Amino acid sequence: MSANPTSCKVVLAANIAKKLQAEVADGLAKLDRKPHLVGFLANKDPAARMYADWTGKTCIDNGFAFTLRECEREELEEAIRDANADDTVDGILVYYPVFNSSRDRTIQYIVDMHKDVEGLSPKLINNMYQNIRFLDPPHNTQKSILPCTPLAMIKILEYLNIYNTILDYGKRLWGRRITVINRSEVVGRPLAALLANDGAEVYSVDVTGVQRFSRGQGLRNQQHVVEEKPDMTMEDCLAISDVVISGVPGDKFKVPVEKIRDGAVCINFSSEKVSSPLNARFEETIEKEKENGEADMTTQHEQNFTPAVKEHASIYVPAVGKVTIMILLRNLLVCTAMARYFRSLTPSQLSALKSLETPSNISNHPIASEENTSTPPIDSMLSSSILPERIDKTNVETLLNETADELKRMVQNNPDVDAKPAEAIERAGTVEEAVPAGKAAA
Amino acid sequence: MSANPTSCKVVLAANIAKKLQAEVADGLAKLDRKPHLVGFLANKDPAARMYADWTGKTCIDNGFAFTLRECEREELEEAIRDANADDTVDGILVYYPVFNSSRDRTIQYIVDMHKDVEGLSPKLINNMYQNIRFLDPPHNTQKSILPCTPLAMIKILEYLNIYNTILDYGKRLWGRRITVINRSEVVGRPLAALLANDGAEVYSVDVTGVQRFSRGQGLRNQQHVVEEKPDMTMEDCLAISDVVISGVPGDKFKVPVEKIRDGAVCINFSSEKVSSPLNARFEETIEKEKENGEADMTTQHEQNFTPAVKEHASIYVPAVGKVTIMILLRNLLVCTAMARYFRSLTPSQLSALKSLETPSNISNHPIASEENTSTPPIDSMLSSSILPERIDKTNVETLLNETADELKRMVQNNPDVDAKPAEAIERAGTVEEAVPAGKAAA
Repeated sequence: MSANPTSCKVVLAANIAKKLQAEVADGLAKLDRKPHLVGFLANKDPAARMYADWTGKTCIDNGFAFTLRECEREELEEAIRDANADDTVDGILVYYPVFNSSRDRTIQYIVDMHKDVEGLSPKLINNMYQNIRFLDPPHNTQKSILPCTPLAMIKILEYLNIYNTILDYGKRLWGRRITVINRSEVVGRPLAALLANDGAEVYSVDVTGVQRFSRGQGLRNQQHVVEEKPDMTMEDCLAISDVVISGVPGDKFKVPVEKIRDGAVCINFSSEKVSSPLNARFEETIEKEKENGEADMTTQHEQNFTPAVKEHASIYVPAVGKVTIMILLRNLLVCTAMARYFRSLTPSQLSALKSLETPSNISNHPIASEENTSTPPIDSMLSSSILPERIDKTNVETLLNETADELKRMVQNNPDVDAKPAEAIERAGTVEEAVPAGKAAA
Repeated sequence: MSANPTSCKVVLAANIAKKLQAEVADGLAKLDRKPHLVGFLANKDPAARMYADWTGKTCIDNGFAFTLRECEREELEEAIRDANADDTVDGILVYYPVFNSSRDRTIQYIVDMHKDVEGLSPKLINNMYQNIRFLDPPHNTQKSILPCTPLAMIKILEYLNIYNTILDYGKRLWGRRITVINRSEVVGRPLAALLANDGAEVYSVDVTGVQRFSRGQGLRNQQHVVEEKPDMTMEDCLAISDVVISGVPGDKFKVPVEKIRDGAVCINFSSEKVSSPLNARFEETIEKEKENGEADMTTQHEQNFTPAVKEHASIYVPAVGKVTIMILLRNLLVCTAMARYFRSLTPSQLSALKSLETPSNISNHPIASEENTSTPPIDSMLSSSILPERIDKTNVETLLNETADELKRMVQNNPDVDAKPAEAIERAGTVEEAVPAGKAAA
């Protein structure tokens, strides 16, 4: 018997992002002008400027137009409203923190939902928590965009085969225990909710303690429920988790890697600023080191995991930013196509669209009590099923097809939808239909 | 929030077997005569006759020739020796139990290793435990056949995505905890060893207690080590396992399904007689019920799991026999091609082959002290690399290619092999090379 070093697989976000990047390039080729993203920088933080520069470079490298608009923070709200009303602006991104207080959330709400490439508008967030994946149920033609970083994390977990494609959509994480260290409103908590809605048993950890997000034994509940776990510590969660995702900002917090279950999958997003998905300093450094032939995975780069993680984990993903920005560019593509379609409509078509508008869903969720203060130029993005004309339908359909995975997930998860396209795409005859326990026990 | 019934996915072996069946059909089409399997029935058990009939029917349905030879049990050894020496017999199968004592194992050893389609010959078994996957290391041209039912189980776990293809060959079960209830010499113990060699943490349970098979933290050991776990109960194992495989013969033993972790994958092989992989009564009954439109998954069919398993498991596989027999037919194909190749050689070529013969590996394993009492007609099956002529090489290569998965696994697992074809088939550029911890910590 020979002793070998551990052989944790380190998977870089740049490689995970390649498929998404190709999808974005295909979608872009179908548009007649470059989608235009405007970034707002209203602070003097050199790090924020670095992220802004990286955003711009990535946009341009991928064939998009990018403008950085700098202003004083008291001028920011007005500047965002101008961009909301400007037809030459397809997507809006704000570099946070601005006031570094609750006022930042108010700014977030000013961004037009239909230009919100980060997917952080209140209605979008609210829909996500309730596992409602369309803006216009029960018509279900208008996708409710998911927040960038949580969706990027899902793409990463799919790439790593943590989602089991043998199971039906909406259940593919069943049997997985996942610890998420970070419960921010923009990443940690929405991520825990999404993973639990897909079937995982999620342990959400922050300084206030542990919460469990799950759909209950046998996934009996259609959406997740949250339980306080006052008796559990982070170490308890690590010991039972197949996947550990950590994103505590800064370089002080470290996951006690010796408590991680052997063979777990570990994902770090601590170098990303949690209020913006675009901090990729770590990855840039890694890439530069690779180019210079001096890649040294021991450098900390503000990771939540020390190098010893590789003595315990089967797979380690040191950063996620390059996947996140591809999700953002894909959202920008969808926003652009939807807006172009909308602008091509006649006044009577606009009325038809307006009649489709649905009121916000009633919810006890705290976020639901906060009103969307944005001033959208349109009431509803699109409902091709009732429109008398189908201008640019090809482009819109193409873009929607490119997000087919999300759509399938949404339909499967939505209790109001009768049609289940996910079942139709299972390979015919290879996997039996699930037998409901109720019937089996009869 | 709506309450739903549980929705465990029931996966039937017949569907899992389809790909294997197609591979077998392709291989068969390349031979100029039907491979001939001889089954020996030396008991009066009606159930054994039913299995024998089913074996024959399956062989013939799949284009193979099958002969059932019945004899008194005291005549069996001589009958097997005759078949060993008979060039018209390509594969030999014995229906156990014969004496229902340790003498049955002696009978098992009489079967020529090169006609042993079940893969139970001592040298094959011994190689498997030591994670040696070739008969002729370091040349590594002659595959050491794996036992049928354990290999079928691996095929099932691959189908269910329990093997993670993101990880390298030989490590694809890393992070998985698997309970195997059954520690027989022909199924349970070899299965535990194979799964542990592929990276799993395996809890082997039988009436004598619990043993853990694993390669240690970070898969540091090249082959598994076995630890007694006197303080653990079966319930302890179930609570922490992602996969539960149970094959206790008869209908008395039941897994306490309420102790199974929610979302676990459960596989039953209790209806198979553990000394023969061919008991498929359960599956036949299921199939008949399906044909008659009266499929009722609640019927017990000697399963180790009660119907309530579906309130806990994400996936349930009620039987495995139809996968096992496809593995057996594939072994029969390989035996046939190897034997034909060998018979086509000249005496000088035979000498060259003989010079390649390697002594048995030294081992402390108990099974190694038992001598192979078979009288093989050839000393070595094949080593195309040193042979002056390549008669029928195409057929042999084709068959070997069809077992490419196993070969890759073997090469990856074999510490003596420098070449690692498994790495070459990873999608280039999508997954980084593993970074050894030793280097990273430097």
